[in-house]
Amino acid sequence: MNKNIRDFLPVLDWLPSYSKAQFGGDLNAGAVTAVMLVPQGMAYAMLAGLPPELGLYASIVPLLLYAVFGSSRVLAIGPVALVSLLVAGTLNDLGSAVSLDRLPAIAGQLALLVGLISIVLGLFRLGFIVNFISHHVISGFTSAAALIIALSQLKHLMGVDIPRTHNIFLILSKAFENLASVNLASLAIGIGGIAGLLFFKNVLGGVLGKMGLVGPMRDVLTRAGPLVVVAVSTVVVFVWGLDAGSGVRIVGTIPGGLPQVTVPAFDPDLLMALLPSAFLISFVGFVESVSVAKVLASRRRQKVGPNQELVGIGVANIGAALSGGFPVTGGFSRSSVNFEAGANTPLASVITALLVALTVVFLTPLFYYLPKAVLASIIMVAVLTLVDFKTLKGSWNYSKSDAFSLLGTFAAVLAFGVEMGLAIGVGIAVAFYLWRTSHPQVAIIGRVPGTEHFRNYLRHTVLRSREVSAARIDESLFFANATWLEDWALSFVADNPDSKHLVLNCAATNFIDGSALEVLERMDEGLMHAGVTLHLAEIKGPVMDRLKISGFIDAFGLHRFHLSTHEAMTKLGYPI
Amino acid sequence: MNKNIRDFLPVLDWLPSYSKAQFGGDLNAGAVTAVMLVPQGMAYAMLAGLPPELGLYASIVPLLLYAVFGSSRVLAIGPVALVSLLVAGTLNDLGSAVSLDRLPAIAGQLALLVGLISIVLGLFRLGFIVNFISHHVISGFTSAAALIIALSQLKHLMGVDIPRTHNIFLILSKAFENLASVNLASLAIGIGGIAGLLFFKNVLGGVLGKMGLVGPMRDVLTRAGPLVVVAVSTVVVFVWGLDAGSGVRIVGTIPGGLPQVTVPAFDPDLLMALLPSAFLISFVGFVESVSVAKVLASRRRQKVGPNQELVGIGVANIGAALSGGFPVTGGFSRSSVNFEAGANTPLASVITALLVALTVVFLTPLFYYLPKAVLASIIMVAVLTLVDFKTLKGSWNYSKSDAFSLLGTFAAVLAFGVEMGLAIGVGIAVAFYLWRTSHPQVAIIGRVPGTEHFRNYLRHTVLRSREVSAARIDESLFFANATWLEDWALSFVADNPDSKHLVLNCAATNFIDGSALEVLERMDEGLMHAGVTLHLAEIKGPVMDRLKISGFIDAFGLHRFHLSTHEAMTKLGYPI
Repeated sequence: MNKNIRDFLPVLDWLPSYSKAQFGGDLNAGAVTAVMLVPQGMAYAMLAGLPPELGLYASIVPLLLYAVFGSSRVLAIGPVALVSLLVAGTLNDLGSAVSLDRLPAIAGQLALLVGLISIVLGLFRLGFIVNFISHHVISGFTSAAALIIALSQLKHLMGVDIPRTHNIFLILSKAFENLASVNLASLAIGIGGIAGLLFFKNVLGGVLGKMGLVGPMRDVLTRAGPLVVVAVSTVVVFVWGLDAGSGVRIVGTIPGGLPQVTVPAFDPDLLMALLPSAFLISFVGFVESVSVAKVLASRRRQKVGPNQELVGIGVANIGAALSGGFPVTGGFSRSSVNFEAGANTPLASVITALLVALTVVFLTPLFYYLPKAVLASIIMVAVLTLVDFKTLKGSWNYSKSDAFSLLGTFAAVLAFGVEMGLAIGVGIAVAFYLWRTSHPQVAIIGRVPGTEHFRNYLRHTVLRSREVSAARIDESLFFANATWLEDWALSFVADNPDSKHLVLNCAATNFIDGSALEVLERMDEGLMHAGVTLHLAEIKGPVMDRLKISGFIDAFGLHRFHLSTHEAMTKLGYPI
Repeated sequence: MNKNIRDFLPVLDWLPSYSKAQFGGDLNAGAVTAVMLVPQGMAYAMLAGLPPELGLYASIVPLLLYAVFGSSRVLAIGPVALVSLLVAGTLNDLGSAVSLDRLPAIAGQLALLVGLISIVLGLFRLGFIVNFISHHVISGFTSAAALIIALSQLKHLMGVDIPRTHNIFLILSKAFENLASVNLASLAIGIGGIAGLLFFKNVLGGVLGKMGLVGPMRDVLTRAGPLVVVAVSTVVVFVWGLDAGSGVRIVGTIPGGLPQVTVPAFDPDLLMALLPSAFLISFVGFVESVSVAKVLASRRRQKVGPNQELVGIGVANIGAALSGGFPVTGGFSRSSVNFEAGANTPLASVITALLVALTVVFLTPLFYYLPKAVLASIIMVAVLTLVDFKTLKGSWNYSKSDAFSLLGTFAAVLAFGVEMGLAIGVGIAVAFYLWRTSHPQVAIIGRVPGTEHFRNYLRHTVLRSREVSAARIDESLFFANATWLEDWALSFVADNPDSKHLVLNCAATNFIDGSALEVLERMDEGLMHAGVTLHLAEIKGPVMDRLKISGFIDAFGLHRFHLSTHEAMTKLGYPI
């Protein structure tokens, strides 16, 4: 019982044994992450098509709840780019029927659904479902989504209007059409922001290192890029009056004070309309979260329970729904930052949440003159690291089908949007897998001279007989490949007119389904008509058990089952 | 080259060597099949929602063409119930926008598409695609479709109007509502037809046998059921004037003379709308055709080439399209009849075609008074043999997932119609397969005392060590199960704190995809952190080749690969 409660409340694993020694790292990590999260939260809210304060609200309560229910010690929960893109698509799909001021409430309902779905999947231990989204599909999906996200920010960078679309060529063409009406001040701020961010991210750490500055201070400084460009650009806009004077679009009034507890309205029609997107967001959010959690946990020999992780993310999303936020998950880059900045326990996230809360209460007026172009630059720099060429390169060499799954998903996302694109990607990966198992390798095997071993005659020097042949089928037999095996066997005996016996080694056959069993019977009949007796060798215990139940063993004849190819060949008079 | 032409024109296999001895059987079979085909052809045209003469037209040219291009010697091509049901659904889906008199032309275009799709699939050797429709899915699909077909004929039997639907409960409720307005004369004719057909089918053969009548004459008589009930009912309606007097619906005027050569109109919009249905009809027609062709061929040690079979059916359908017919395929029951009546070569089908042609030219006026209720009874008796309980019973014992695939398909066809139902069924079967391979068996193995063999410790008495464990994974590693294996391995070492080495036997692992390879690397890292060294044993040659390319072998270390579990365990100091 005690173990069960602990499984469900991972907080009991770390809080009772919390030590002072852990606090330094947690404090530092909490502060560093907060410094990143405040501007990112606002930026991702903008990406989702929502007011910026929602990004801040989604960075308080969900963090506190995940600290209690989440199974990862260092995951940094909050708004992330991919999920925000999906939220944007969902809200966009609702069309003009929905007025703008209802969007925050709808985003909350979406978070509620995501939360409930995640918790249900977790409680029913269905986390394995996401295993069907292969790493290569994720990679293609993420790269394409990152490209779409980055280009979707062009309008803020250029200060022009470009309709939301996943068609990157349309975005580029609209951007080109609008070149003449570009807001140069916005563009300058945006490009300046990108340059500043890249400087902090890629250059500053080295500079500070050379200057001898290491430790927590350097961590905070190098991660402060977003905050610094936010501060600098806000001051620039305010001082030069760029908003009124040059038409630079600014964030404007952000309501101050902590988020109110909101009870999402129960609207069955709306919930049904949001359901497919909520599933997608749950899956994508979980995959991103659990991947980074696993990588980070393995570095400290900790464990992440996928199903508990679903519960943790689910509770965090319900927290987001009840506190005026929108869907959240564990972000890749922020979690890494949190880890590297020394987070030892989820207390780091609690500190982050408190700092964000302080920001919301006291600092929102400071963001009035924050230019949207800078938020866009934060998004662009953050997501471009998601474009992943490495996986493509590796899979191109190792397995073309993986590479094509990746490229297919990438193309499908660009062509059909993120939701349909991911579905197509999963379909492609599954189709490649089915294609492979439906065309199994069948190796003709012969005796390694002087031994009891039988090996593929194409790879080894072996002895074979004209009358007694042996083959090894390297796959389980099921509906999609049984007919293939039958065609192979009938062709084989047609091509080998002297053959009298065919021994099928089933050592790699882990199951035989009902369709395959029927084909096996038909194939045996066909071989018999051709004057060839079929034998089965090395059938595995569990497979044999099922064959017994089906009555196949009696019908086929126990004398045609053999423990090994060697035994079969010896009985059939094939000399050593 | 010569071989190639023969492959493409199977007629060259049998016609040049045709002997007089073969003719008797062919003539008898051709006549018997024609006797069945004339009434069935008209009935299936009615089932498809088309004028009866189309069923006759579809029974002439397609048969002649299949005799030249088809790979089966005994397949009886023509309209069949399942395909006609699909045609009916397709035409129905076009809605009221299409006027009734355009339906024959549209059915022709559908046949054209089916023909082209089949030929393309055959030429590109894509016949294997249908292997993904498992036997259990086919069984559930066919049973449900047969039920729908049979009930769809209730309206003709009762002489009332019931709208076309796949919802059998709706059909039954409408039939119930219309009980008061039943046309009793129609009902009597229909029930009489059913009784007569069942008598010919199940009783007459025995009676004639007892009377000492065997041979061709008995064949013709027992197969003449449909023709006899057609003749008798027509005479009854004519003599008693039941059409005008009692409102019995009759076939009416059937245009005489051979079908005209029709060039299907090219209507891109229409063709696009028909395309999905054409694919479905191609698949279903091919599955039915190739199943019966294989069964019959194996009884005479002949071979059926699935891809040539696609070409044969495709050419037959193009023939149907050009001669005013509708989609055809090789029917199960008629082919069996053809075979049993002694068909030796496709000449039997040529004879059938000639007899149907004579019927069309000279005998159509005789069908004027043919009551539709009798055609309905022919359909009902024909399709009820398609309801298949045997497969369900067998699979229930052998493999629950097969049984659930069957039941799921059955339910889905009844709930969502034949097209969506078949797609759902295929999805269910694939999902079960993926579920199974994503949860592979991992057996902890130990040494069979005194031997080099390692077996599952749960099934055998074996020796194991606390520090060096060995496990056999009974599946290929791919994206959907790699994470599962990782979780298993990390749990295993967590539960076995003394373990220092884990040997993974990969004898049943036929491939490792890119995602799984990454997980394997991560799992190795995780195990290392837990103080356990991973070893791989008995990796297959082809898998090893790919691992070499990927660089995994160098990174992992060749010393951790072992030829056998025995070798690994011995090297690791685990005593015999």
